[in-house]
Amino acid sequence: MSTKARSTVPGKPLGRKELRAIDAWWRAANYLCVGQIYLMDNPLLRVPLEPHHVKPRLLGHWGTTPGLTFIHAHLNRAIMARDLDLFTVTGPGHGGPAALATSWLDGTYTQTYPEVSRDVDGMHRLFKQFSFPGGVPSHVAPETPGSIHEGGELGYSLAHAYGATFDNPDLLVAAVVGDGEAESGPLAASWHSTKFVDPRRDGAVLPILHLNGYKIASPTVLARIPEEELLSLLRGYGHTPYVVAGDDPDAMHQAFAATLDHCLDEIREIQAEARASGRRPAERRAWPMIVLRSPKGWTGPEKVDGQQVEGSWRSHQVPFSNARDDDDHRKVLEEWLRSYRPEELFGDDGAPVAQIADLHPLGTRRMGANPHTNGGLLTRPLSLPDFREYAVPVPRPGSGQVEATRVLGGFLRDVMARNPETFRMMSPDEHNSNRLQDVLEVTDRTWNATTLPGDDHLATDGRVMETLSEHMCQGWLEGYLLTGRHGLFSCYEAFVHIVDSMFNQHAKWLKTSNAIEWRRPIPSLNYLLTSHVWRQDHNGFSHQDPGFIDHVVNKKADVIRVYLPPDANTLLSVADHCLRSRQYVNVIVAGKQPALQYLSMDQALVHAAKGIGIWEWAGTEPEQGAEPDVVIGCAGDVPTMEALAAVDILRREFDDLRIRFVNVVDLMRLQHEQEHPHGLSDADFDALFTTDRPVVFAYHGYPWLVHRLTHNRTNHRNFHVRGYVEEGTTTTPFDMTVLNGIDRFHLAIAVIDKVPQLRSRAGAVRERLLDKLVEHRNHVHTHGEDMAEVREWEFPYPGDPDGATGTSAG
Amino acid sequence: MSTKARSTVPGKPLGRKELRAIDAWWRAANYLCVGQIYLMDNPLLRVPLEPHHVKPRLLGHWGTTPGLTFIHAHLNRAIMARDLDLFTVTGPGHGGPAALATSWLDGTYTQTYPEVSRDVDGMHRLFKQFSFPGGVPSHVAPETPGSIHEGGELGYSLAHAYGATFDNPDLLVAAVVGDGEAESGPLAASWHSTKFVDPRRDGAVLPILHLNGYKIASPTVLARIPEEELLSLLRGYGHTPYVVAGDDPDAMHQAFAATLDHCLDEIREIQAEARASGRRPAERRAWPMIVLRSPKGWTGPEKVDGQQVEGSWRSHQVPFSNARDDDDHRKVLEEWLRSYRPEELFGDDGAPVAQIADLHPLGTRRMGANPHTNGGLLTRPLSLPDFREYAVPVPRPGSGQVEATRVLGGFLRDVMARNPETFRMMSPDEHNSNRLQDVLEVTDRTWNATTLPGDDHLATDGRVMETLSEHMCQGWLEGYLLTGRHGLFSCYEAFVHIVDSMFNQHAKWLKTSNAIEWRRPIPSLNYLLTSHVWRQDHNGFSHQDPGFIDHVVNKKADVIRVYLPPDANTLLSVADHCLRSRQYVNVIVAGKQPALQYLSMDQALVHAAKGIGIWEWAGTEPEQGAEPDVVIGCAGDVPTMEALAAVDILRREFDDLRIRFVNVVDLMRLQHEQEHPHGLSDADFDALFTTDRPVVFAYHGYPWLVHRLTHNRTNHRNFHVRGYVEEGTTTTPFDMTVLNGIDRFHLAIAVIDKVPQLRSRAGAVRERLLDKLVEHRNHVHTHGEDMAEVREWEFPYPGDPDGATGTSAG
Repeated sequence: MSTKARSTVPGKPLGRKELRAIDAWWRAANYLCVGQIYLMDNPLLRVPLEPHHVKPRLLGHWGTTPGLTFIHAHLNRAIMARDLDLFTVTGPGHGGPAALATSWLDGTYTQTYPEVSRDVDGMHRLFKQFSFPGGVPSHVAPETPGSIHEGGELGYSLAHAYGATFDNPDLLVAAVVGDGEAESGPLAASWHSTKFVDPRRDGAVLPILHLNGYKIASPTVLARIPEEELLSLLRGYGHTPYVVAGDDPDAMHQAFAATLDHCLDEIREIQAEARASGRRPAERRAWPMIVLRSPKGWTGPEKVDGQQVEGSWRSHQVPFSNARDDDDHRKVLEEWLRSYRPEELFGDDGAPVAQIADLHPLGTRRMGANPHTNGGLLTRPLSLPDFREYAVPVPRPGSGQVEATRVLGGFLRDVMARNPETFRMMSPDEHNSNRLQDVLEVTDRTWNATTLPGDDHLATDGRVMETLSEHMCQGWLEGYLLTGRHGLFSCYEAFVHIVDSMFNQHAKWLKTSNAIEWRRPIPSLNYLLTSHVWRQDHNGFSHQDPGFIDHVVNKKADVIRVYLPPDANTLLSVADHCLRSRQYVNVIVAGKQPALQYLSMDQALVHAAKGIGIWEWAGTEPEQGAEPDVVIGCAGDVPTMEALAAVDILRREFDDLRIRFVNVVDLMRLQHEQEHPHGLSDADFDALFTTDRPVVFAYHGYPWLVHRLTHNRTNHRNFHVRGYVEEGTTTTPFDMTVLNGIDRFHLAIAVIDKVPQLRSRAGAVRERLLDKLVEHRNHVHTHGEDMAEVREWEFPYPGDPDGATGTSAG
Repeated sequence: MSTKARSTVPGKPLGRKELRAIDAWWRAANYLCVGQIYLMDNPLLRVPLEPHHVKPRLLGHWGTTPGLTFIHAHLNRAIMARDLDLFTVTGPGHGGPAALATSWLDGTYTQTYPEVSRDVDGMHRLFKQFSFPGGVPSHVAPETPGSIHEGGELGYSLAHAYGATFDNPDLLVAAVVGDGEAESGPLAASWHSTKFVDPRRDGAVLPILHLNGYKIASPTVLARIPEEELLSLLRGYGHTPYVVAGDDPDAMHQAFAATLDHCLDEIREIQAEARASGRRPAERRAWPMIVLRSPKGWTGPEKVDGQQVEGSWRSHQVPFSNARDDDDHRKVLEEWLRSYRPEELFGDDGAPVAQIADLHPLGTRRMGANPHTNGGLLTRPLSLPDFREYAVPVPRPGSGQVEATRVLGGFLRDVMARNPETFRMMSPDEHNSNRLQDVLEVTDRTWNATTLPGDDHLATDGRVMETLSEHMCQGWLEGYLLTGRHGLFSCYEAFVHIVDSMFNQHAKWLKTSNAIEWRRPIPSLNYLLTSHVWRQDHNGFSHQDPGFIDHVVNKKADVIRVYLPPDANTLLSVADHCLRSRQYVNVIVAGKQPALQYLSMDQALVHAAKGIGIWEWAGTEPEQGAEPDVVIGCAGDVPTMEALAAVDILRREFDDLRIRFVNVVDLMRLQHEQEHPHGLSDADFDALFTTDRPVVFAYHGYPWLVHRLTHNRTNHRNFHVRGYVEEGTTTTPFDMTVLNGIDRFHLAIAVIDKVPQLRSRAGAVRERLLDKLVEHRNHVHTHGEDMAEVREWEFPYPGDPDGATGTSAG
């Protein structure tokens, strides 16, 4: 580390007065950060520091913080000088103090939380609340004004930053990437976002790779490879890197200011060039970025107890932790705080002095007040075509062969066409595989790298974003949604587990935001999970996993919704509903393979709205008021087909059996109304599933999820649930259901076994069904395809001869 | 694309005869690949191709396959020439046909599966079984000889390859990285594995980045950036890249052979230099790698139906799919197959002709027979110290303040010391944070990049692997385990969700392997999840997530185990058990904060072995044969403490209340014996939890998991489970339990509400407990720490005055 400063870009753009002012602002911000971490009283050190002024539990991270405040100081200068629409994404996990200090200094914090006033009292509150029970977390969080990025789990800062800039041509996002975070997979991949930016229509990301050298205890990889190797890496990602390295404040201020100016000029030039021509840029240009090397815990105590602290991993969290009880440590703390010369920075009233009080942009140009960071403020509803116009005709329930997601694709094409600036679709290279190709009639795949003849629908301004990284798809979409726009992520069901953890963080963001009055609701995160567990004949065991639903329902009921539309018309209705919704994570699971259709659009609309209902045409309901002998329940397209086929078998064999058929679209209807807003009351649930009759339930995913959702229902102990139990691999579609015991024959046998009046008299039927299973296995292993009778089966009971196939909820 | 070949390394090392032989081998392999994808009969085209010779369902991926066979041809040559211990990791997802063709050609397939003989019959079987019901998947899988890497979910090939080479100094792993896979986050990060290799003690990975340009439908990023940018990127990762690009087979053979020779020389030189000195290498050297640019679907039909196929995304899967029913397509297929001139390659008996029959290494040098790829063959049991010697004294149950994971660290230190070549620990920079630092007394953190004064325990030959990427930790460890060694992954509980999907794939690998006789059991994958949900006072809501357990228990019962040891001695016993086990995923959740201890080592040993048991000293058990009034159950360290504290309250208030206290270590004991091998019988379960008494259960994670595990138990409807319900953020430890209703006061109130004889007479006690909760909240918000009475609480009932604190299972 140079003791002065080293930089790629020469020049000293700051006049003496400006330099002094920026440094004073920086010192003020650093003072406020140390105060937040350590103090619960005596914020301005008006009296000597006493033990009770220090927090009993010291939490927070000092190490990254002074670098962040340094960057903020210079970004403020640039915003003012250039009237920039700019906000920051803070990648380094626990950089919370810096964001809080900045927004307190520029007034946005007080505007958001009036009780944290810009005076001694407010400073007192600012300090005490930090990492304090009932206060604010130590990382940037939804509570932090100006943030769209939680600093908890690392790796998503760049993807979030890019997502924010898409379709925001005037927006600049300064993405501070921590060198710890930079080791993570999602971050390492996100650098390639450079191939998905349109300099004409999108804003720009300025990555600032902040190398302070250490993680919790180890050095970081990027800080410890030769600089030439690092620069080679960053050039390989499509950037022009500029280095600012050193520890002398004044020299570093000049170097960083010169570098930032240079980068902003270069961004403006790239954009101006692209926008002047209006055409696709002749070649992708390398975007500028900054590598900032500064000491970990910069300006903190150099040594404590004889051990190096500044510039060492010992600065990562709280540099010394006995400041309440140890007089020596408390003395170090007081000297450290006084080293910023607070008496020069804050007036008698505790407010920043004139020199720095106005050293920030005005109004919504302040980073803490940038409206993009409270995206709900900017959200416009999607212009949606009438989804009913995309209905497929259903002449008879249980007929036809329709790819549900292909039908959805037609609807999404027109959603895309009508919302050319506020709707994007993401997919890890599965858009067409998922049968959504109609969307490419009105847009292309986003692609800013080289194209060749024969390429299919690539364009710099394409709005279908495909890259083989679920992390980037999710991260981009989150950034896009958090800044108030709309989108849909289509993904293979099994591999969406790749973003389990990102879903967690987003769901937590939504839950927390719901309790923050000033945060406006943002469009929902919509997942379309297709290529689902039952149709992996192509891929086999490694591609079978319906557990994302289980993962999702662990999160707070107010933010999650799960839909399993059984056919195309229901899917359309569900998708329309999800695209209109706010502040949820909607999971839609739907097949892409040709499948039977059940409901006309009118029926689908009612069924989707109710979320659960009796299909009277399918069952053999008893007269009004009487109970059926058995309830057959189902959720999911393949389970619905098998359940109907089981009913068919049972109706043929036992003409006096009274069967009720219940289909579930909205999975959370199964849960209790006290546990989920969509949950049914006990009375409604009992009206559907009875209080004492056997229920044979065919469920799309792991069967125990249905038990978990219904465990406190009156009739729960009569629920017999079939679902995916990790069986089957590369095989035929029907064989998959057989291997997991969810096929028509197994379901019919389950009914025979559970209905008392059948058990005694159905022995022969049971045997015939078992024979069918043997016949099936032999056929499949010989011919490699399913028997015609299951492959071409349609539901043979049209119910009402007029075609009115009633659906009613209980 | 050049129509010939372009390469960084000059030279034509292949003589004419060798060139012809290698090309013939390659043609044979390609013929076998096309046959697998398309044919179910007439394997050698002895008669003209008829519709019924073609499979009814065409599955598999042709696009990547010829590149893989090309690489295999040359790797075989190198192995023979240099007697290399080398195997391949096939990153491109569906490259299955290539691995199968190679191992059939070299005899390993027939040796493994004798029915797939090296003759016409065997070729027939080889073709028919591929992607056929009851056959083998289209990607490399556990069934594939010579594989440690499933080609299902993409992104882990490099990490697996590195994991295999650690501590295998003579091993070379050729890791073929697909350009689709290369876009994924985990793969993008894995390139940095170069900083964690010891050229003295580890083997080497030779990455071969295979650019064939397309994913399913889109081009790939790395294939479409200027070559200088790509090379800059790869140099930035720490490699010296060599390019081989073109499509002319002969020229490409020469170029690839020369390049491979050069790379292998360079690897040998780096290793020789490092090993000669024996000291830490003066500087990290760049490792060679190959960039292979070849057309997608190389040697396949150039055009079909007038559309470009070779070199296009149309080659990705099956280039044309009507070969059974469409005469023109079938003609294309026949011409394509005949273009390899099978009559020159296979004799009348169907076996490979002499020219290529022996063009492979011998015995275990064959890639399909490399013993590292069936790691259980090489596994030696760990030398384990007696874990009982690390016991902490427990003078009285419910006393002391011990960091359980720090105690474990002492044991692990000696495990590490005793197994210096077969045990590694991985952590995303949390090793010390997780209190395992004692291990660093006997080894260091693996680190091959620059070091600076003040760095803590870094060394090239360190065996604690830390990088801020859960993906790399998991991938490395999987590669290490799959090649027969042992390890442990310590991770923050919330963030282990980052590898949910990798866990899925590994668990699926284990389940599939269990059914493959020739695969030998490998050491278990051991997770130590600490920094758990109840002690995120430092970090708050974003760091709270106990759902990994829920995720894990969705997988097959034979491969998953979950342990929640309540204290240090139990943790030691559990850890010892897990390190001895094979073929499982073991999840251990244990706190790292100072906590009460309950069991002496003798008791812990018994309790851990039983996995569940009554703590008689804690409850007020009735006389033999009588039932208690209430059962208080618990699982997890913090829930155990709160449950005991609740018992304390209840004992003081109601001296006639008969309380049974049940602690669960092995979570799967709760499940039914028919569902999990560790599950209790109904009789045993009822003996513990009764058939009709209220059970108040304090569980570590999401409470519904306990309902799901116990839903079919007699007494389930009396189970009242408390756990984490997504409440709380940055706050005190006790406040976290209060916010989620799992604290002593809420638990005691739950008992009052559920036990009929208390409900009527305990109103005043209930009020006092509610007052306590209010008092707690006020205290915490004012003082920022918990009330002394909960912070310093110990269990005050020593039970047996002799200190014998009986533990018995039901």
